[in-house]
Amino acid sequence: MPGRRLSLVVVALVLIAAPPLAAGGPPEFSATTDEAFDAAALGSYEGEHSAVYAHIDQNLDAHLGSIQRWLRQRSISAQNVGIQEMAEMLRSDLEGMDFAEAELVPTSGHPGVWGYYDAGADKTLVLYLMYDVQPVDPEDWESPPFEANVIDHQFGRVIMARAATNQKGPERAFFNALESILAVEGTLPVNLMIAAEGEEEIGSPNYPEVIAKYEDRLRSADGVLFPFNSQDPRGDVSMFLGVKGILYFELEARGNETGGPKEAEIHGSLKAMVDSPVLKLIQAIASMTSVDGNTILIPGYYDPIRPPTHEEETLINALLDDWETQETMLKQAFAVDRFANDMTGRDLLMSYLYTTTLNVDGIWAGYTGEGSKTILPHMATAKMDSRLAPNQRPEEALEMIRKHLDDNGFGDLEIRQLGGYPPAQTSVEAPLVQAAIRVYNKYGKTPDVSPRIGGSAPYYVFTELGLPLVAGGLGHGSGAHAPNEYMVIEPHEGSEIADLAQIEKFYVDLLYALAE
Amino acid sequence: MPGRRLSLVVVALVLIAAPPLAAGGPPEFSATTDEAFDAAALGSYEGEHSAVYAHIDQNLDAHLGSIQRWLRQRSISAQNVGIQEMAEMLRSDLEGMDFAEAELVPTSGHPGVWGYYDAGADKTLVLYLMYDVQPVDPEDWESPPFEANVIDHQFGRVIMARAATNQKGPERAFFNALESILAVEGTLPVNLMIAAEGEEEIGSPNYPEVIAKYEDRLRSADGVLFPFNSQDPRGDVSMFLGVKGILYFELEARGNETGGPKEAEIHGSLKAMVDSPVLKLIQAIASMTSVDGNTILIPGYYDPIRPPTHEEETLINALLDDWETQETMLKQAFAVDRFANDMTGRDLLMSYLYTTTLNVDGIWAGYTGEGSKTILPHMATAKMDSRLAPNQRPEEALEMIRKHLDDNGFGDLEIRQLGGYPPAQTSVEAPLVQAAIRVYNKYGKTPDVSPRIGGSAPYYVFTELGLPLVAGGLGHGSGAHAPNEYMVIEPHEGSEIADLAQIEKFYVDLLYALAE
Repeated sequence: MPGRRLSLVVVALVLIAAPPLAAGGPPEFSATTDEAFDAAALGSYEGEHSAVYAHIDQNLDAHLGSIQRWLRQRSISAQNVGIQEMAEMLRSDLEGMDFAEAELVPTSGHPGVWGYYDAGADKTLVLYLMYDVQPVDPEDWESPPFEANVIDHQFGRVIMARAATNQKGPERAFFNALESILAVEGTLPVNLMIAAEGEEEIGSPNYPEVIAKYEDRLRSADGVLFPFNSQDPRGDVSMFLGVKGILYFELEARGNETGGPKEAEIHGSLKAMVDSPVLKLIQAIASMTSVDGNTILIPGYYDPIRPPTHEEETLINALLDDWETQETMLKQAFAVDRFANDMTGRDLLMSYLYTTTLNVDGIWAGYTGEGSKTILPHMATAKMDSRLAPNQRPEEALEMIRKHLDDNGFGDLEIRQLGGYPPAQTSVEAPLVQAAIRVYNKYGKTPDVSPRIGGSAPYYVFTELGLPLVAGGLGHGSGAHAPNEYMVIEPHEGSEIADLAQIEKFYVDLLYALAE
Repeated sequence: MPGRRLSLVVVALVLIAAPPLAAGGPPEFSATTDEAFDAAALGSYEGEHSAVYAHIDQNLDAHLGSIQRWLRQRSISAQNVGIQEMAEMLRSDLEGMDFAEAELVPTSGHPGVWGYYDAGADKTLVLYLMYDVQPVDPEDWESPPFEANVIDHQFGRVIMARAATNQKGPERAFFNALESILAVEGTLPVNLMIAAEGEEEIGSPNYPEVIAKYEDRLRSADGVLFPFNSQDPRGDVSMFLGVKGILYFELEARGNETGGPKEAEIHGSLKAMVDSPVLKLIQAIASMTSVDGNTILIPGYYDPIRPPTHEEETLINALLDDWETQETMLKQAFAVDRFANDMTGRDLLMSYLYTTTLNVDGIWAGYTGEGSKTILPHMATAKMDSRLAPNQRPEEALEMIRKHLDDNGFGDLEIRQLGGYPPAQTSVEAPLVQAAIRVYNKYGKTPDVSPRIGGSAPYYVFTELGLPLVAGGLGHGSGAHAPNEYMVIEPHEGSEIADLAQIEKFYVDLLYALAE
């Protein structure tokens, strides 16, 4: 019997030590190899297309004007502002470049845009484009977000505008390059398929409809390019081979048959008798994370995440070479003094690459004006997103969140899914990736190659067709999803950041390198 | 040794059963007497003032017009809208009724208004008035909140407007009664002191300055009246002898040296590396209450609350006679299906009267517009209030909240106090209270007498001078602090709700009853 009592003690002490909700923590994948990927070893692309380069140099003002034309056209998908106009601007630009096909693609939401340029070439490149932009709070901007002014900036002359870098700036720079090739050579070195969407910033809910329509033709292509400003402020290039997925939803608590005022706010003093939907939402969200907000307590939420492959391990080892400088720059860029959980080094990088997140994008309830108003609000809403690492799936994540809420007394909270798609991955061995690295090497910008970024894009629609995808290009910009977004056009003397002409010449070379 | 092991088990099991934070629960005060207060036993006021009553009946349209004039003058203290204009309207009305003194009283905030009518009488009554109103969301209203239209309603013809019942409606009805007495009798039966404030709805931060200026004169008065619509939809009268205090504050989390973005929102995917101020605010608020939002977990928070006195016990016992009907009506009025913790009966009433609250009046952070925006906001703010039962003090409550936050890892959250004052209590034995009950009895409206209401008003400024305070009058209204606020002017045939003329005649009788 004493033995039995002792085991009871042990059981009891274990129970005491357990966290408030039983759940696995974030994955901890320790290193399995010392091998490091070496991008320089792939050599440089050796082609020279001097006549095209000269055409770019001679038409740079017009090229800048084309970028500004795109940036001045609002296209806020979340608010359905300027969407049709921007889709038509893109379609009309394709038509102007003698694309054989250039058409709007109706979907259940905002239209896609499809284009096909038949160069009679062996290779076919798909261009993934997004023509929509994030909403703005204009009062937070130094220069109005839709004026696309060229202004002085710490890194030189920049275009400041919503979408300057995410994503119209680099996209229209790519088309500037196309126009110069066509003007000089009369045709392109590869066939091009354009598959654009107008809903990237709201989670790409209907992009699969665009892909489904052209799926057989897309499968015949050799890879997918997403024009992208890949340089950091020092001019160094980062290349990423994948993206996280995303689950975006609204979580809402309302007064209902279980308690709380059902119809309207009531006097705040009634809290002594009546449940608060605001506190219910707050408690529900709080139950999903540790007290520091950094560990997700939803049972099983981290479980699907797979460890790095050997190839990814070598990429990670290479990234860690320069990681200390990266950390300093990230802190500056985000105005952050310390990272979550005081992470540094490999822990921080691995968290970025292999951890899922639960983030509150917005929350609102009750009175939010000046001064005091004493009410018990009848409803409260939060916008939340979760970034999904490989092999998480949005539908599975949503199910776990729902079950967690149901199991913890929050079964009456409504979840409204606003978007969701899985992560995507391309191998560094893909010919398209190897070509891109060789062109970077030509410009003396041997890239850091990351298995993925923490951000999301619906690349799965391509990678799940078996297509490699590269988001790449020279150029530097920042401020995506934030005020004062910019793209550098004319860097300071001596800067390692590419100017607009170099950005466009890179895209010229990339098309020819792919054709080889 | 087995004994020692066993006690370890017991200790362990006790620890398991303990709530996440050690804290006393809400007070549970069991009944100590069966004695019940009987208001009918006090008898009826027997005075008749027929000429004054006739004057009221003959001037009812003008009296209604005076109420509308007050309601159409916005006076939103939280937003500083129309405050000066409303203060001057009140002052000018006093002057028009031959008050010897009628002046604005400058304070550190919105001005008070002081008035004195010298009737050469033995008794002096102080009139506590508030001339400010709650903010509005005009789109939620059936009839515009500052048009003061008389419209059809389930209880008859009503004036619908912000402040119709809280508090300009009954206040101006009282002045209508004064005008009729003055017109008929040439003077008043008592001397009157007017002590009005324009900051009640923001927690009366500067009302003590008004009181301090006239403190010696106020001490010489016999009691304080606050004109109040005391009838429920059935016409029954509730009288309350006290109010809870209040602590109102904003709680704010921002990115700072401990983590999170310091300057602006950043991309939502960075949650994998960066702390979230929104989650910090959510966790901080969540830590203050039980998971159902109904028990405050701040150590010691409930401790100062005193049990009911014997007098209060007799009042509570009387209230419980009719409590079942009250519960049903409260559920209808608030659109609530069940009360917090499934409370009913004495538990519910005691919670309303003797429990303090923690309520979220509003919360906001990040993106709150249409659709999706994926950001990690750099700040989050909540407006919160706590109703204070006797003997809680706002400064003590605030200190406990601050300590709880500091002790639980939320020391960097800012608390901005927007208002706070202690509760107030008057005895049912006070001559002013007894006079009011006798006038109610005359109108066949023997009141339910409650020790207090759950709402707050700065009555402490009077009760702490030793003055009894009565908030009373006939009439019915609802919607304080909510959309569609109204006051019944002309009830349906057969209704027990007083019409405007009866409301005014009650005030006439009350003044004469006090003079006796």
